[in-house]
Amino acid sequence: MRVILVAGTTRTAAIEGISAAGADPEAMPHTPSADAEIVTYGDVVRAPAVPVSPTGCPTPALVTRAARDVLGFDLTVVDGGLAKPTAAPTVDLGAEPGGDVREDEPVPKAGEIYESAREFGRSLPDDELVIGETIPGGTTTAMGVLRALGEAFPVSSSLPDNPIERKREVVDEALAAADADPGDFADDPIGAARHAGDPVLPAVAGIAAGALDRGAEVTLGGGTQLLAAAAMLRHDWVDAPLRLATTSFLAEDVDLEPAVDRLDLEFAVTDPGFDELEHVAARRYLAGEAKEGVGMGGALWLTADSDIYLTALRQQYVSRADPIVAEVANVAADGG
Amino acid sequence: MRVILVAGTTRTAAIEGISAAGADPEAMPHTPSADAEIVTYGDVVRAPAVPVSPTGCPTPALVTRAARDVLGFDLTVVDGGLAKPTAAPTVDLGAEPGGDVREDEPVPKAGEIYESAREFGRSLPDDELVIGETIPGGTTTAMGVLRALGEAFPVSSSLPDNPIERKREVVDEALAAADADPGDFADDPIGAARHAGDPVLPAVAGIAAGALDRGAEVTLGGGTQLLAAAAMLRHDWVDAPLRLATTSFLAEDVDLEPAVDRLDLEFAVTDPGFDELEHVAARRYLAGEAKEGVGMGGALWLTADSDIYLTALRQQYVSRADPIVAEVANVAADGG
Repeated sequence: MRVILVAGTTRTAAIEGISAAGADPEAMPHTPSADAEIVTYGDVVRAPAVPVSPTGCPTPALVTRAARDVLGFDLTVVDGGLAKPTAAPTVDLGAEPGGDVREDEPVPKAGEIYESAREFGRSLPDDELVIGETIPGGTTTAMGVLRALGEAFPVSSSLPDNPIERKREVVDEALAAADADPGDFADDPIGAARHAGDPVLPAVAGIAAGALDRGAEVTLGGGTQLLAAAAMLRHDWVDAPLRLATTSFLAEDVDLEPAVDRLDLEFAVTDPGFDELEHVAARRYLAGEAKEGVGMGGALWLTADSDIYLTALRQQYVSRADPIVAEVANVAADGG
Repeated sequence: MRVILVAGTTRTAAIEGISAAGADPEAMPHTPSADAEIVTYGDVVRAPAVPVSPTGCPTPALVTRAARDVLGFDLTVVDGGLAKPTAAPTVDLGAEPGGDVREDEPVPKAGEIYESAREFGRSLPDDELVIGETIPGGTTTAMGVLRALGEAFPVSSSLPDNPIERKREVVDEALAAADADPGDFADDPIGAARHAGDPVLPAVAGIAAGALDRGAEVTLGGGTQLLAAAAMLRHDWVDAPLRLATTSFLAEDVDLEPAVDRLDLEFAVTDPGFDELEHVAARRYLAGEAKEGVGMGGALWLTADSDIYLTALRQQYVSRADPIVAEVANVAADGG
């Protein structure tokens, strides 16, 4: 079993009102680099700080790392277009930071990324893979790909008040820039990613396709972004069994079942039991923030085999989140 | 505890008669990429084949991987100037493949590599690090650095008949190209690496220096190449306790003790007990081949805590080496 985290960036995240990943625009491009370090090492190393939302919810990377503390799974981080340095070791598939989807070709190398990712997935020795993502602005590019493929877009957001209309406008502009209507890329999932997506999606889809080619069991750990990757696979005629594992927070926010049925995915929803925690970070999740990301749904699904694991995960999560929350509170008290 | 493997290349390896890593000159640049994959995944993934010496001894990466099978230690591969793609995730410190040491500046970025490596080592969360290397031709560049620093050079080779005179000539040419005499770089270890070394050495020395800066326990796992990295540290006024852990095969071939004493290193020699194995690959080691590399001495040192671990390591090694040896035999039988 191996967990693969594809970490990348898209300039789409810089469009006002799109993303909550990272508390401010300057910190945002560092978010996936920081997330990769947290799951790899347990803390930031080269990245400037642990990503925290404007309301003080630390990145879901802490949950995935807590699961790794408990289960000790192998982890491989794939560079899906990082923009800032990371101390996490990464696999290079030739991805570069994605452009703003409102430009004509935000991911010019989508085809090359998909092909090298597929070759990588095909060559890995593991019988089971869980694949997750971290890319600020990724729900918008996921909506772009789903609409380009002609699929419905059950898009969530890491902001409690989902700026869905803003995302719709951006995706409309993306399709207009490609001179395309929704569904025009139904037979060209690479084109959908090239014109309306981000570099992480063809990397995730390619790794999954390659692993499925050789009969491996693949779980996509995440929400609408992983759903967009699954849609790319189905539109590329990959019909092998495929699982989408997400968090209860996301599943409560968005009805994924119609899309999951249509794409013929096995669907797993895991509740980490954060209502049992008296912790400010856990309360942010219960209030509808963050919900998913950095492979959290997949990591929870791995942990859900046993109540003992889930209990241990909550303990680990609290011990990892405590110093972060304390630091944020101190900065706030200092007026920083 | 974390094992760090710095993997890189130098065109010095292409000089005739210098290196045995990889059976042929075309395979050689792939060797460190393959070694990184073997320790990471247990097998090659993107790299074309498991490196095997001309006489059929598979890469020491299999021993280090066998130790990882037994101990499950965390692994981080650092790109110390790889020339070919690898599916192993790698940390980017800005290193590029090293030039032929007979050129004026084979490692122009030695200073930048050392600084970013030091920052990386300083930021890592681990209290204990073991650092190893894989770079074909690396004993020659180690000799270059040791001579540039004015240190003795107890150089071994992965060929049973050590081409020591050829290496001496090459290092003489390296110093001549830098217009330098032995010892001229005694106060400038970065300059020694820049003019007579390879990109792996400043990366190893920098990571060690950074970890020592914050009081971590550092073990250099390897032979003369790690000795050259230790010499760089001592000549950079890093006087913290430092351990060199090597294999019994290397220690039997080369008397490292005078250099170890002079550089004030703790010295650990581990015998994997390969004489208990009736295996062709183990017999190659007993015949004096390979001896060390890819962190083998460090991995064995970690394993040597317990006879149970060492026994398990030998079993794992045999099960990993068997299919490689069988394939080599088949190719030979086919006249390939």
